[in-house]
Amino acid sequence: MSGRFVNENLVGLAGSRNLLATPALVLDLDAFERNVAKMADHCKRNGLQLRPHAKTHKCVEIAKAQLAAGAIGQCCAKLGEAEQMGAGGVESIVITSPVVTARGIARAMVLNAKISDLMLTVDNPENATALAAAAKTAGKVLKVLVDLDPGLHRTGIAPGEPVLALARQIHADANLELRGLQCYAGHVMHIEDFAERREKSLKAMKLLGETRDALKAADLPCEIVSGGGTGSFDIDPEAGVLTELQGGSYAFMDKQYNDVKGGNGAPVAFETSLFVQMSVVSNNTSGLATTDAGFKAFSTDAEAPVLLSGAPEGSSYFFFGDEQGGIALPKGEKLPLGASLTAITPHCDPTVNLYDAYHVVRGDTLVAIWPIEARGKSA
Amino acid sequence: MSGRFVNENLVGLAGSRNLLATPALVLDLDAFERNVAKMADHCKRNGLQLRPHAKTHKCVEIAKAQLAAGAIGQCCAKLGEAEQMGAGGVESIVITSPVVTARGIARAMVLNAKISDLMLTVDNPENATALAAAAKTAGKVLKVLVDLDPGLHRTGIAPGEPVLALARQIHADANLELRGLQCYAGHVMHIEDFAERREKSLKAMKLLGETRDALKAADLPCEIVSGGGTGSFDIDPEAGVLTELQGGSYAFMDKQYNDVKGGNGAPVAFETSLFVQMSVVSNNTSGLATTDAGFKAFSTDAEAPVLLSGAPEGSSYFFFGDEQGGIALPKGEKLPLGASLTAITPHCDPTVNLYDAYHVVRGDTLVAIWPIEARGKSA
Repeated sequence: MSGRFVNENLVGLAGSRNLLATPALVLDLDAFERNVAKMADHCKRNGLQLRPHAKTHKCVEIAKAQLAAGAIGQCCAKLGEAEQMGAGGVESIVITSPVVTARGIARAMVLNAKISDLMLTVDNPENATALAAAAKTAGKVLKVLVDLDPGLHRTGIAPGEPVLALARQIHADANLELRGLQCYAGHVMHIEDFAERREKSLKAMKLLGETRDALKAADLPCEIVSGGGTGSFDIDPEAGVLTELQGGSYAFMDKQYNDVKGGNGAPVAFETSLFVQMSVVSNNTSGLATTDAGFKAFSTDAEAPVLLSGAPEGSSYFFFGDEQGGIALPKGEKLPLGASLTAITPHCDPTVNLYDAYHVVRGDTLVAIWPIEARGKSA
Repeated sequence: MSGRFVNENLVGLAGSRNLLATPALVLDLDAFERNVAKMADHCKRNGLQLRPHAKTHKCVEIAKAQLAAGAIGQCCAKLGEAEQMGAGGVESIVITSPVVTARGIARAMVLNAKISDLMLTVDNPENATALAAAAKTAGKVLKVLVDLDPGLHRTGIAPGEPVLALARQIHADANLELRGLQCYAGHVMHIEDFAERREKSLKAMKLLGETRDALKAADLPCEIVSGGGTGSFDIDPEAGVLTELQGGSYAFMDKQYNDVKGGNGAPVAFETSLFVQMSVVSNNTSGLATTDAGFKAFSTDAEAPVLLSGAPEGSSYFFFGDEQGGIALPKGEKLPLGASLTAITPHCDPTVNLYDAYHVVRGDTLVAIWPIEARGKSA
C-alpha cells in the first residue's frame, strides 16, 4: 500500500481491470468521453449552454473533462461539493439547493470571494434578506437564481405572485444580482415512457416559460434559465425555455436511466460508462456465489445492480447484506474463487458517493485513478 | 474551513449540536459509553470474551474505547478495514470474510507482519492452500478460524465432513495455525420476535457446538469459537458454545435493532447513541418541510429514518431524493428555515459508511470529531 489508493500500482498494467482490489468503482473512459461529447454536441446544436451536475460525479477531473468539451461550469447540490469544485479550479458554479443556515451563508461568502461566478438558488424572501446582509458585510455582490417549484414541492417558490415578489426583492437589493431562474422537475426524470415524460416535462417548462415572461414583463433580469436533466435532455429543447441544461447522470448512466426510453422507444442515448467490479469470495453452495460487494458497494434506493460480465448467461445479482452480494447462477454452474465480475450500478449518484476514487479504464487496462474529492460532502 | 472538518471550530461550544453544518453524523457519548460498558459487563458475567465488529463503526477511537472497556480485539469485515484498525494500534483482529484474491492475500501477509494477532477466516480448502503458501513465503505463521455455514449460504463451509476436512488440512500445515471456528447467523439477528430469534439462534449454536466437539474429538485445536451479534447477545450465552461474542450495532443501535425485542418484550437493552442531524432548507409548502438529508445521508436498505426531535409531535421523515428529506408535518404546522432536526438512522452500519467523521456530543455540546478511518474501505 505505498500510494494513496490500494490499486495504484496497477495503473498501466494490461488486463489490470480484473486484478483490482474490489469492490472498485470503474469508469470506462471511452464510453465516458463519448457521453460527454454527445451531450456537449446536443446542447450546441440546440443553442443551449451545458452546466453538468457535479452531484453525480463529485470529481474535479470529470468536471474538467466536461468543461474542456464546452460546458460553461458546474452545478453543485451542496456547498461542500461547491467548495471542492472551487478548490479544483471550477470558476462558474450554481448551487442548486438553498443555503439557509448562518454557518452555510458564511461559508458561501468565502466561496464567493474565491471564485468568479458563484450563483446561489433562492426560494424564500427571508433567505434572500439574509444572503443580502451577508454579501454586504463580505463586500462582494452575490449572484442568485430564483428557484421555481415545478409542483414537486421539494424546493422552489410557487409560480405567480410569490416568484415575482421574490425576484423584485432580489433585484431591488444592491448586494444581490438577479441572474434568472432555476427549475428542476426531479419527479419527471425517471418516467420510463417517453410520451408521458415529455408531457410532464413540457408542463414544467411551460410554467417556467410563463414565469420568465412575467419577470421580463416586470423589467426584471432573467438572463439565465437553468434546469433539465438526463431524463429530459431530448425534450427540453423543443420548449425553448432553458438557456442552460443541468444533468449529471448522462456521463455515467445506470440501471434506472437505462430503463428510461427515448422518443424512438430505445434507451436514452448515452452509454453505460460506470461499473462496479467485484470478486467471488465464497462458492461452497451449488448455484450460488458470494461476492465482496453489498450495501456498502452499491446504492440501495433503486433496484438491484445488473450483472454485466464475469458470470454465465442467466446469472443475476442479489443483495446479500452490508458486505456481500449473491450471484444466483444457472443450475450446476459454479464460479471460481476470486473470479472478477462487472455490474451496472442501480443509481449512479448515491453509488459514486460510496467510493473514494474512480478506477479509470480503457478496455481492461487501468489507466488512472481519479479521486472523488466531494464524496460525502453533503453539508 | 481552517481545519480538516467543516464543524471543527464548534468543538466545545455549548449548544453547538444545533449549529452543525448538516447533514452530520452525531454520536451521543453518554449513551455510547453506557452501551459499551453494558456489553462488556454482559460478556464478563457470562464468561465470554468480547470482540466487537469494526464494520459498524470503522473508527479507531471507537475501537480503543471498546478495548479500554475490556474487549480483546476487533472483528473487521474487510482487509481494508483491518489495515486501518491495525494502523490505529489494534493488535488482535479477526477478518470475518474470506480473503481470496492474490492481491488480497499479499496484503494480508503485510498486515500479519505488522500486528501480533491477525486471524483470517477460511471456508475453502483451495483458499487455505493459497494462504499457507503465502504465509510460508512471508515467513510468519498465519492464524486462521474455519468459517462454518449456519445455513445462510453466504460464507462458510458445510458442517460434517467438509468442515472437518478443512480443519485437518489447516492443522496439518506448518504455515497455518488453526485457532478455532467462526459462525455468524446473519439471517437471525433482525428477527423481531424473541422466541423465534432464540429458536433459530440456538439452532445455529447447536450446529456450531457439534462442530466444535467433532474438532476436539479429532484432536484438532478449537480454542476460539467466535460469533453472535447484537441480535443474539442475550441468547448466545445459554448455548455455552461461543468463547467470544462478535457484534457491532450494540454501540449505536438503529431503527432496525430498536424493533428487535428482548426476552421481556422490550427493545434489546441498548440505547440509541447514533443520530443524523439535519436542517430545514425549504418550507414553502404547508404541512411540509424539506431538509438537507436524503439518500446520501442515510442508508436506504432498511426503512425510513425515525424523526426524534426538532419537529412537532406527529411529524415524520420521508426520503425526498439524493440530497433531501421531506418532513410531513401535522396540518397547519411549519418549520423555520434552518431548523435543526435529529433522526435515528434506519441501519447504522451502511449509514456510518457515508460519513467522514462522528460529531461526538455530550448533551447538546460538540466535544470531539472522530474520523471514520475505514469509511469506504470495502476492498
